[in-house]
Amino acid sequence: MIYFDNSATTKPYEEVVDSFVKVSTEYFGNPSSLHNIGGKAEQLLTQARSQVARLLNVKDSEIYFTSGGTESNNLAIKGTALMYRGRGRHIISTTIEHPSVTEAINQLEQLGFEVTFVPVDSDGRVDAKEIEKAIRHDTILVSVMHINNEVGTIQPIKEIGTMLKEYPKILFHVDHVQGAGKVPINFYDCGIDLCTISGHKFHGLKGTGALFIRDGIRISPLLSGGNQELNTRSGTENVAGIVAMAKALRLTIQKRETGIHQMEVIKDILRDELEKIDGVKVHTPKEGSAPYILNFSVRGFRAEVFVHALEEQDIYVSTTSACSSKKKSPSKTLIAMGLPEEEANSAIRISLSFENTMEEAVYAADKIKQTIKQLGEVMN
Amino acid sequence: MIYFDNSATTKPYEEVVDSFVKVSTEYFGNPSSLHNIGGKAEQLLTQARSQVARLLNVKDSEIYFTSGGTESNNLAIKGTALMYRGRGRHIISTTIEHPSVTEAINQLEQLGFEVTFVPVDSDGRVDAKEIEKAIRHDTILVSVMHINNEVGTIQPIKEIGTMLKEYPKILFHVDHVQGAGKVPINFYDCGIDLCTISGHKFHGLKGTGALFIRDGIRISPLLSGGNQELNTRSGTENVAGIVAMAKALRLTIQKRETGIHQMEVIKDILRDELEKIDGVKVHTPKEGSAPYILNFSVRGFRAEVFVHALEEQDIYVSTTSACSSKKKSPSKTLIAMGLPEEEANSAIRISLSFENTMEEAVYAADKIKQTIKQLGEVMN
Repeated sequence: MIYFDNSATTKPYEEVVDSFVKVSTEYFGNPSSLHNIGGKAEQLLTQARSQVARLLNVKDSEIYFTSGGTESNNLAIKGTALMYRGRGRHIISTTIEHPSVTEAINQLEQLGFEVTFVPVDSDGRVDAKEIEKAIRHDTILVSVMHINNEVGTIQPIKEIGTMLKEYPKILFHVDHVQGAGKVPINFYDCGIDLCTISGHKFHGLKGTGALFIRDGIRISPLLSGGNQELNTRSGTENVAGIVAMAKALRLTIQKRETGIHQMEVIKDILRDELEKIDGVKVHTPKEGSAPYILNFSVRGFRAEVFVHALEEQDIYVSTTSACSSKKKSPSKTLIAMGLPEEEANSAIRISLSFENTMEEAVYAADKIKQTIKQLGEVMN
Repeated sequence: MIYFDNSATTKPYEEVVDSFVKVSTEYFGNPSSLHNIGGKAEQLLTQARSQVARLLNVKDSEIYFTSGGTESNNLAIKGTALMYRGRGRHIISTTIEHPSVTEAINQLEQLGFEVTFVPVDSDGRVDAKEIEKAIRHDTILVSVMHINNEVGTIQPIKEIGTMLKEYPKILFHVDHVQGAGKVPINFYDCGIDLCTISGHKFHGLKGTGALFIRDGIRISPLLSGGNQELNTRSGTENVAGIVAMAKALRLTIQKRETGIHQMEVIKDILRDELEKIDGVKVHTPKEGSAPYILNFSVRGFRAEVFVHALEEQDIYVSTTSACSSKKKSPSKTLIAMGLPEEEANSAIRISLSFENTMEEAVYAADKIKQTIKQLGEVMN
């Protein structure tokens, strides 16, 4: 099996699953309980928070655990909007965000907020100057993703954050889901106020995530109740999942130094081979993209057909983002980049992890070539 | 170790943890992915949904998976309020709800909703007639818990639901967190529109829960995004946790027939022994309470002191609900029942599971007696 769909989800590391089991069975207490069975669980929670904070170079008090990327994005956006609605009701984002950002903002529109979705260039990149142009006197939040989940384009987070320092009343949220552990950003240097990560994107477990909230910023909770997570996210903490996420982040960061280089080599092999094929067009920009996402179209084939044809060869890729893949609508990011609908409809995303090998890349490139040839013959 | 704090959280069944591991490692795909690795995960998700629906005697399409009880309660209440705010802005609940209900409602008050918290009697029970009296022309939701988490009183859910059938525009939400799998209710017979369950309260894993939403009812999502869970709860599904929860519910229901009787016997032993002790007052009503929660006060001692003294004997009980236990405020339910603050401050909750034994009950009763004696001597 060649699993090239790591932006959809990753296989959890074995050690991560082991930690989950250990915590779930040996430290099953409720961290809020007064007695020591709860106390031990609370201690693990505190340690995991410190570990995640250290790995992200922020303070322990700035890490809030959630059930995943979607919750963190919703919490950041709706939590800010509800808390600061007295200050203003305008939000700025881009045309290439994950649905958990776009839809959260769309829901706020129904509650009277206004939004500007700033367009991107043909590489799928937003310009900090365009963000600045969209700023109004009542803008309270700018939300821009770090690495686009469909084509891998890295957004100019530092430029945007630096520009926003001139506007101290506007909060800056970054959806870091596709970058965490692999393409580091310094939250403080980039002027980030809120930042989303998701455990299962870096070999942690599904149902785990975190939101960084810079010290001093208060947001309105989405899940209110028993006052867990400093009253910002109530609900009995998934201690085992949180410990597992902390471990997954540590292991991913450890593997990064050698792993990133290997993924770059794999991506280059794939790009070179794909670009040689007649009818293939690579959409991921050569410069300024994540070393593990490669998006391309095969002229004349709908992407679903191609995904299933590769699946027959035991190679797993995706059409667009996982959550949009069943909608049969064209890739939103590619449309935003100005591609014709037909090309966007035939787009394939390959997304790598540290566990992929060069042999897999060579084999897959070969199979992609063969598949295009065979599908072409069938269609003629 | 005698673990008598099962209303705070339960130890997951071994088979439940095994299922989690198997699904996490062998079926790690994203259920939204088009290829078969995603397809297998989606299949497991569908099966788990059917299993939970069958166990609760409802339709598959009425089960929405969430990250736990707090999320389900927040989703039910805020989701209803935002969806039906055009119809009215009044919500009815009781004075003894879990904070995830009360706080969700309080947040809505800040957004212009109004709420009536109906009081309870000295047994901690609300009267359906009192609920009816609170109904206004603009009431859109009634939220009442099934089994009180602090004293175990069973609420007249069927009476309230039957009464509410005369008011078809009012939705009925039930927080079934402390009852699920142990004290069954028929959602349809009781006229329930929305019902919350939480995996870790019946030996499933933390971070898992579900909301029953009766067919035909639409609510506004709290977590919007990739359209998972029929667009009512977005976010990559925690498939392994969901499968684990389905299994835990099945095992709990299987154990119920014999298990419930055993818990009743244990509770009776404890009650009898406790009532013999001078200075002890049992607050859990003899009739109409869950067979696994027993709440009592020991005159003259703050509850924390008593919890820690029992902990020294390797017996784990709690003061109030876990999430309130560190606040040092008196038990909300006992205050609502009309108890003086001093008594509410010295309240202890014992909460059982099917795994507790009669030997444990006898041993614990004996240790409680000794502890009261010793603490009394220390204080004099």
